[in-house]
Amino acid sequence: MARILTGIQSTGRQHLGNVLGAIKPLIELSNKPENEAFAFVADFHSLTTVRSAEELKESTKLAVAVWIACGFDYKKNTLYLQSDVPEVAELTWYLSCFTPFPMLENAHSFKDKSNRRSEVNAGLFTYPVLMAADIIGYDANFVPVGKDQVQHLEITRDIAGAFNHTYGETFVIPEPKVDENVKVVPGTDGQKMSKSYGNIIDIFLPEKDLKKQIGTIVTDSTPLEEPKNPDTCNVFALYKLLASQDQQTEMRNKYLAGGFGYGHAKAELLALILQYFSKERETFNRLVENEKELDSILLEGAAKARKVITGILDRVRGKLGYRTK
Amino acid sequence: MARILTGIQSTGRQHLGNVLGAIKPLIELSNKPENEAFAFVADFHSLTTVRSAEELKESTKLAVAVWIACGFDYKKNTLYLQSDVPEVAELTWYLSCFTPFPMLENAHSFKDKSNRRSEVNAGLFTYPVLMAADIIGYDANFVPVGKDQVQHLEITRDIAGAFNHTYGETFVIPEPKVDENVKVVPGTDGQKMSKSYGNIIDIFLPEKDLKKQIGTIVTDSTPLEEPKNPDTCNVFALYKLLASQDQQTEMRNKYLAGGFGYGHAKAELLALILQYFSKERETFNRLVENEKELDSILLEGAAKARKVITGILDRVRGKLGYRTK
Repeated sequence: MARILTGIQSTGRQHLGNVLGAIKPLIELSNKPENEAFAFVADFHSLTTVRSAEELKESTKLAVAVWIACGFDYKKNTLYLQSDVPEVAELTWYLSCFTPFPMLENAHSFKDKSNRRSEVNAGLFTYPVLMAADIIGYDANFVPVGKDQVQHLEITRDIAGAFNHTYGETFVIPEPKVDENVKVVPGTDGQKMSKSYGNIIDIFLPEKDLKKQIGTIVTDSTPLEEPKNPDTCNVFALYKLLASQDQQTEMRNKYLAGGFGYGHAKAELLALILQYFSKERETFNRLVENEKELDSILLEGAAKARKVITGILDRVRGKLGYRTK
Repeated sequence: MARILTGIQSTGRQHLGNVLGAIKPLIELSNKPENEAFAFVADFHSLTTVRSAEELKESTKLAVAVWIACGFDYKKNTLYLQSDVPEVAELTWYLSCFTPFPMLENAHSFKDKSNRRSEVNAGLFTYPVLMAADIIGYDANFVPVGKDQVQHLEITRDIAGAFNHTYGETFVIPEPKVDENVKVVPGTDGQKMSKSYGNIIDIFLPEKDLKKQIGTIVTDSTPLEEPKNPDTCNVFALYKLLASQDQQTEMRNKYLAGGFGYGHAKAELLALILQYFSKERETFNRLVENEKELDSILLEGAAKARKVITGILDRVRGKLGYRTK
């Protein structure tokens, strides 16, 4: 049984790029009987940037709803808020005493901002230590990461190794799991879809808002009557990701025949998204309207997570000379 | 009612300099009916340097025994191990997100070591944030500090202020209480008594070891028969600190009369220490032999401390947007 751990960013909304590129593949992995997944909303990490309780709560709620809606099996696996298992902060302190200062100074997350140090808070600087605690606090074997996160996982491995070296085998050393075939989803402007580019499609929006977002997809100015090239069209690029082979062929023919405008194409993309994600949208809408259900799911997850991390903390405390249970 | 907070270092043994210069004055303060003291052994801080469970446990036990032996009223006040109330680490994370990076870079505790950064661990760097959590996690009004700790308390005040500024009044801003008249106790070599100078007198040692330690007090080579100058003698300097006026006069006369050697003076100093601290030594010896008693005292203290800090954490979590009780 391999334990997989994944952190879910709670800042900003999840989008089609996340859903297809990260969430769905991870959920697929987590559903395999030989795997067990711990997925948590990293709302402690959010505090390095967020300064509004309302914003934090809202984005946390949406993130959880998206994961459940996309099929994360929280009964088989474990889904929790980082802030509901604050024991991770205790482990963070222990680990920080095994983290060489220069290692954090050289972390990308800090280096990128080191020319404006006065704006950097200490939380941002020690972020990789909290991330290490998130991982080794649950004896995780694998952490699916994007290439930009490989260095942080190296830091985690180094810290765990340093501790083990001093106090004997205590932590599982996690392996990164870099998916080389990540589906790159284009945004409304044709660039890679990303919150920071402001080019996202949020498939969980109410239909009216989703329609508006799809309306912003950038197209060329070929007149309605003329034939169009599907292979250079941002609308078609998105359509292709979700459509069946037959649907794709049909759509391609409409583009090539002419008399089919980008407005029509966008309407078909909207219809396809609504149909393709109908179950997800239904679950999502039910959950965001039903905080009690969400809360009970999260509290159940927190209890499962807490059981694991307190066991590991006990192991660590014993090694360090602190009181154990 | 003013709440006073004080951290007790758990590295190395307490010595006469600590007892007279810091512990006794603080205990006196804590015994006043208008004050309430929280005293904790800073055994999380110790982890920035200690790498042995046995060493950590032993020095923690001794520190607690010394404080109780010196008269700290743990029923009226609160005495606990930092590691028994790990909630402080959670608060540390929150506060670190309100701590500008350069503020820690400029802290003495880090600056002193910044020319050998590779030996500095992240715990040592963020040490002042943990110290801030130790203080504002208990709504402390006053923190008795030596002059070398004033900057750290300024950092605490800045962090608490930054949080209050963003999220509204949440934390009590603590005041430093610098005692300008700290009793300076000379060590065995006449310099200020300090662990780092290796010149301490540990009044809680078994008589035989204490005698040996007193034997190392540096004296000049005036022969036994000749008169001696009490005012330049390290033995007399220590004797004076504990002796009554009559005892001092008597001893002074012996020095001036001649025929009284330093060996005699040291024997009298030993006798005086044993008599002056007889109650303290008795309590200390009982406690170090009785871990159950110590544990029950510490667990009672931890329960009292936990009640306070969890209340404050709840206040903070509510402001930040995390789940509250």
